Amino acid sequence: MTNLEFTSELKVEYIDHLGSDIDVARAAWVSTMGERADEGDPKRVAGLINMLMRDRHGSPFEQGLIRFRVTAPIVVFREHHRHRIASYNEMSGRYIELPPRFYVPPEHRPLIQVGKPGAYQFLPGDIEQYDKTKSLFTENSIESWYVYQELLDSGIAKEVARMVLPLNLMSTMIVAMNPRALMNFLSLRVISSESAFPTFPMWEINQVANEYERKFREFWPKTALSFAANGRVAP
Amino acid sequence: MTNLEFTSELKVEYIDHLGSDIDVARAAWVSTMGERADEGDPKRVAGLINMLMRDRHGSPFEQGLIRFRVTAPIVVFREHHRHRIASYNEMSGRYIELPPRFYVPPEHRPLIQVGKPGAYQFLPGDIEQYDKTKSLFTENSIESWYVYQELLDSGIAKEVARMVLPLNLMSTMIVAMNPRALMNFLSLRVISSESAFPTFPMWEINQVANEYERKFREFWPKTALSFAANGRVAP
Amino acid sequence: MTNLEFTSELKVEYIDHLGSDIDVARAAWVSTMGERADEGDPKRVAGLINMLMRDRHGSPFEQGLIRFRVTAPIVVFREHHRHRIASYNEMSGRYIELPPRFYVPPEHRPLIQVGKPGAYQFLPGDIEQYDKTKSLFTENSIESWYVYQELLDSGIAKEVARMVLPLNLMSTMIVAMNPRALMNFLSLRVISSESAFPTFPMWEINQVANEYERKFREFWPKTALSFAANGRVAP
Amino acid sequence: MTNLEFTSELKVEYIDHLGSDIDVARAAWVSTMGERADEGDPKRVAGLINMLMRDRHGSPFEQGLIRFRVTAPIVVFREHHRHRIASYNEMSGRYIELPPRFYVPPEHRPLIQVGKPGAYQFLPGDIEQYDKTKSLFTENSIESWYVYQELLDSGIAKEVARMVLPLNLMSTMIVAMNPRALMNFLSLRVISSESAFPTFPMWEINQVANEYERKFREFWPKTALSFAANGRVAP
Repeated sequence: MTNLEFTSELKVEYIDHLGSDIDVARAAWVSTMGERADEGDPKRVAGLINMLMRDRHGSPFEQGLIRFRVTAPIVVFREHHRHRIASYNEMSGRYIELPPRFYVPPEHRPLIQVGKPGAYQFLPGDIEQYDKTKSLFTENSIESWYVYQELLDSGIAKEVARMVLPLNLMSTMIVAMNPRALMNFLSLRVISSESAFPTFPMWEINQVANEYERKFREFWPKTALSFAANGRVAP
Repeated sequence: MTNLEFTSELKVEYIDHLGSDIDVARAAWVSTMGERADEGDPKRVAGLINMLMRDRHGSPFEQGLIRFRVTAPIVVFREHHRHRIASYNEMSGRYIELPPRFYVPPEHRPLIQVGKPGAYQFLPGDIEQYDKTKSLFTENSIESWYVYQELLDSGIAKEVARMVLPLNLMSTMIVAMNPRALMNFLSLRVISSESAFPTFPMWEINQVANEYERKFREFWPKTALSFAANGRVAP
Repeated sequence: MTNLEFTSELKVEYIDHLGSDIDVARAAWVSTMGERADEGDPKRVAGLINMLMRDRHGSPFEQGLIRFRVTAPIVVFREHHRHRIASYNEMSGRYIELPPRFYVPPEHRPLIQVGKPGAYQFLPGDIEQYDKTKSLFTENSIESWYVYQELLDSGIAKEVARMVLPLNLMSTMIVAMNPRALMNFLSLRVISSESAFPTFPMWEINQVANEYERKFREFWPKTALSFAANGRVAP
Repeated sequence: MTNLEFTSELKVEYIDHLGSDIDVARAAWVSTMGERADEGDPKRVAGLINMLMRDRHGSPFEQGLIRFRVTAPIVVFREHHRHRIASYNEMSGRYIELPPRFYVPPEHRPLIQVGKPGAYQFLPGDIEQYDKTKSLFTENSIESWYVYQELLDSGIAKEVARMVLPLNLMSTMIVAMNPRALMNFLSLRVISSESAFPTFPMWEINQVANEYERKFREFWPKTALSFAANGRVAP
């Protein structure tokens, strides 16, 4: 029998990227320097990027691409795919028998919510609540998995059988976004005191977004800084 | 206790729409008649639409919108949302306790697949397979629902608890598409002998697409006819 | 000989639209009420829209469409077409001989700029400057028109001959946008003291945008009010 | 005085790109291999790509980006910008005084059209027609340029003055597209006997597209081959 796996890890693997702060600046310099855009003064990159961000000149931030492989529960991908300015390829339960890997919330995941729709606050659960969550998630996953297997064993098509699997089933996708689309994602999926507009992401997608932001800061440091300094509103 | 509901119905309710064949023609006539586009000859609409379709002049088919409310299992919405040229609003398990309604494949739903990935053929299951599917879907749904309830009763946040629910949980969304985006959807989600390119949609999303196509034919009859006559390739 | 026409009018004709404030609310209510979204309380529409705008829940504002026919100089359409979340059909100089209609800036169009790129201020010109602009625009248009005609008379293809025509040539297009895309357009193309972010549109496209906004306010009054109250940042 | 420049060159400079045929395959393999997609067999890349192209599985072809700097007359950019799945930054006549460089059709550019809208055929002009075109383009450009200068000298704002300039004025932009968007562009802007659907691009944009295709073949050779083999219909 296959070994079931339970994990609390939301995995974001950087694949590759194209572009940098200087490429953003060169894109903007095309407006004013045309064919000689590449001769722009590197010392003026930070100031230029800040002006673009502040005045919402968004198009130069589209000159680039970053790609990730993400492994997370289906519930996260459901939210992620609502971001339409991005490219996705995800593991398909129509084509393969899905691997038995299930998400269980980690101990530091807030389990309790207070407040009302649109403005919930999330707080840690107590140890009993965490234990209950862990054991119920685990049992439910196992039960569903056996049902899935029994359906497959009965000759039922994979695309039908998979419907019994729960939303905490782990899946894998690759995603490609340009920096502008990425900033839009981050503006809605990262909680930050620098945000001019409040945002209330689900904890799990917030973790994914945090990993994206870490790489964003590494490859587009001036853009990331300016994004934060301008209220984290995607231009 | 809440009454659990099991259904095999994929519900597509037409909400409203804007536009018609003549509007497609008028959009195209702007190219040649500018401000006087509305004076175009109604008798030439069918011929013009056919030329647009054949030569892949797609933009006039964007002049309109049609909206539906769809109630279907989550597994269908997972596929649907990958169509990015559309607007969606879906019931959210973050904001509300989800209603206990679950999808069970109907008797006429093919349950068996033969062939290989990318080119499966689907065949009906035998009565035993159908019974097994029905009973396992039902039991698994009930089990998951009790787990969901137990988590909620323990004070666990809705957005966490929902992760134990299976992909056959029914959900509701509204969707808005222009005729061009709709044709793209239909080209990939409807099985038709008129298709120049083969397509292998999942049975459930195929049913949803069939309902879309029925309304498409009603409101844009000449466009729908021309779409079919030109190999069902979205322009 | 064809009569040349000179105009200072930027014409925006409303064609039709689909949707209203209540439709925005109903789209949002799908999140919390699913299939019963239409039973939402009409008295809560304004408050809900304001919450959506403030928290940048943008998707409900995509449930609708508005269409305009615009007649303006090519220079305006060059900028307009950079807004990609919209559908366009424009008069084509490849297919027809273009009509001899040319834009001349009206007297109240600011002709002088001070300041630096990204933050220009525009001021009225003096009467001499206006007269010079008017006469040079007119002469240049006439000259170009004769060259265009001479090329056509020599048997040169329309698509080649048209290249001698200037950017103040009037053209006509129809445009379709959903309310969210429209708000993005307005946020960048309307000057308003309510804007949280500065914007520096060209005077001509600003006039077009003002007409759009007038219709936006008429058909989505609560949305338009909330847009203004929240810094005119498109959600 | 500035020296006016006349050119027949449509310049396409490759900037950089991300991705390759193997990356397309790996994106598709995520569907069937999840996290182990990178272990896919390189020998199966060509076959897989062909299957994706044939069955219109388009999303794996979005995993990449290619960027060009293009210098061409405004009339070409007018058409180019109608392709919305791309990112653009162009030289702006609002921010700078435009350089006096003008397009003149080269001798081998077909000048005569026969047939009717939607299905023109283009033929070479005779030497007289070519000479007339060349001299009229040149004179008209010079005239317009002097008018532009006179307006600027009178203190008129650049964004106003530029409107007297003709559509053969050369401009520069950078463009970023993913391979899927690029194939869509090529399907409509390259004339090829391999096209399943006829296309009638303007000669100048066809030249630009040919340069794009050359680079496309260099960096995604298997994808380009498969695109051609499948009727040049973008997936």
